[in-house]
Amino acid sequence: MKTYLDCIPCFFKQALEAARMAGAGERMQKKILNELAEILPEFPLTSSPPEMGRIIYGLARRVTRRDDPYLKIKEKSNQLALNIYGKLKKKISRSPDKLLMAVKLAIAGNIIDYGVKNSLNVDVELAKILNEENKAINEEKKSIFDYARFKSTLRRAKTILYLADNAGETVFDRILIEEIKRIDGDKRIVYAVKEKPVINDALVEDACVCGIDKLAKVISSGSDAPGTVLSLCSKNFLRIYKKADMVISKGQGNFEALSTTKRQAFFLLMAKCPVIAKDVGCEVGDVILRSLF
Amino acid sequence: MKTYLDCIPCFFKQALEAARMAGAGERMQKKILNELAEILPEFPLTSSPPEMGRIIYGLARRVTRRDDPYLKIKEKSNQLALNIYGKLKKKISRSPDKLLMAVKLAIAGNIIDYGVKNSLNVDVELAKILNEENKAINEEKKSIFDYARFKSTLRRAKTILYLADNAGETVFDRILIEEIKRIDGDKRIVYAVKEKPVINDALVEDACVCGIDKLAKVISSGSDAPGTVLSLCSKNFLRIYKKADMVISKGQGNFEALSTTKRQAFFLLMAKCPVIAKDVGCEVGDVILRSLF
Repeated sequence: MKTYLDCIPCFFKQALEAARMAGAGERMQKKILNELAEILPEFPLTSSPPEMGRIIYGLARRVTRRDDPYLKIKEKSNQLALNIYGKLKKKISRSPDKLLMAVKLAIAGNIIDYGVKNSLNVDVELAKILNEENKAINEEKKSIFDYARFKSTLRRAKTILYLADNAGETVFDRILIEEIKRIDGDKRIVYAVKEKPVINDALVEDACVCGIDKLAKVISSGSDAPGTVLSLCSKNFLRIYKKADMVISKGQGNFEALSTTKRQAFFLLMAKCPVIAKDVGCEVGDVILRSLF
Repeated sequence: MKTYLDCIPCFFKQALEAARMAGAGERMQKKILNELAEILPEFPLTSSPPEMGRIIYGLARRVTRRDDPYLKIKEKSNQLALNIYGKLKKKISRSPDKLLMAVKLAIAGNIIDYGVKNSLNVDVELAKILNEENKAINEEKKSIFDYARFKSTLRRAKTILYLADNAGETVFDRILIEEIKRIDGDKRIVYAVKEKPVINDALVEDACVCGIDKLAKVISSGSDAPGTVLSLCSKNFLRIYKKADMVISKGQGNFEALSTTKRQAFFLLMAKCPVIAKDVGCEVGDVILRSLF
């Protein structure tokens, strides 16, 4: 997805949030906004929003000299999600279509608010999200929720590249991967996280804490952009990306980075902002399982 | 009110809206955002948001070479509000406290969406706002709705300076001014509008179309900032501002520009954004009648 002009106010909002998260005082926050303002005229709109995201969060890291401001949030998110792992597994086992439920949970894991106080709240939050998802799916918006094609592609795929999004969400990814492996234990899955801290995106340690390493090969994309920007990825990652029979991409950042590439991928996300909703052709809040190509 | 860092993303949003309203294509929109980015590092946060507002809308006017992009909206707003003038007067005549109802309507006029299709919709919109206002007032938030002080100050005031906000809203101002004059026909009222077009702010012609000139002396503040920034106002305006027994100030822009000045004023507005709500110490959506001093 290209960067829309409406993304620009949001870049400043994100920079401010990143600065505050990194503990910057008001003066340092302003410095970060000023530096972003200086970069802005040179940033080409043909680039995708995660390319600017990378610049913004790099700026906040550099100015505040804090390498991983979201570390505690990531740890807490992992813990909260791990606490409800048993419940999530029960949900799957009780479902008539276990794979569909696992897909739905994986998307829910993307939008859940891990800022809530305990696992009981996470549970309530989850119930709310799943209801909303059911609504979206019941409305049979097949153009944005193409489960049939996902299922048939998955059946044929021997190698799968799974692009991670946030920490915490990794537990929900684990559950989908477990379901995929339950159906066919021979499938080989590679789980790709970010190379260095950016926002609350999952790193190798998050994948391991959440138990993904026992099911899949965990690698890094080689980049610290908050989305899989191919031009910034490592050769190793690109080799796997090209060869995999199927790509499962989680979250808005990965969609923004990959939606205009020519490789088929299945994007699992919720449309969180009006810009992406317009780009996809759906409403804000819609749950998306979209196959490109 | 000073400019908060949270105002900065909103400045870019406003610039984009202003550019689009002026019919700018995507390239020209980007040019306007780039120019704003260039100005930003030099803009002191001790200035009030309307001072930046003036720069933004001036920028949009200059780049697009359109002097008054909101002209049609202003004309339509005036017309829609004039269409329900009779109904508004009936509402007043049926109220046990006519002045209170007139104050409430004047605030409702500030937040009404004139973008709706006809006067029936305006009516529905108005009913909704008045219900919300009743809620706010019923909760007896006297710190933000000090009607008692407004009433007692008004009783004593012989000269009143009334600071206008938007076109359309001018009809609601007329109704409050009529109520003030009904109580005491000897009060002399000066109604101050903006000098030149900025957003949908009322100009002299809007005040006249809505019939204010038959009740009050209509003047301009001498400035095209979307709020009464004293350093930009004319000498004539400042003389009246200093001498008036009472100042009634409408809308968020005038509040932002005047809230830190030492002159007593009554601010009638709704808190439309989280920044102003935090500054006032209220919630977004709260209806405010606040006296400073």
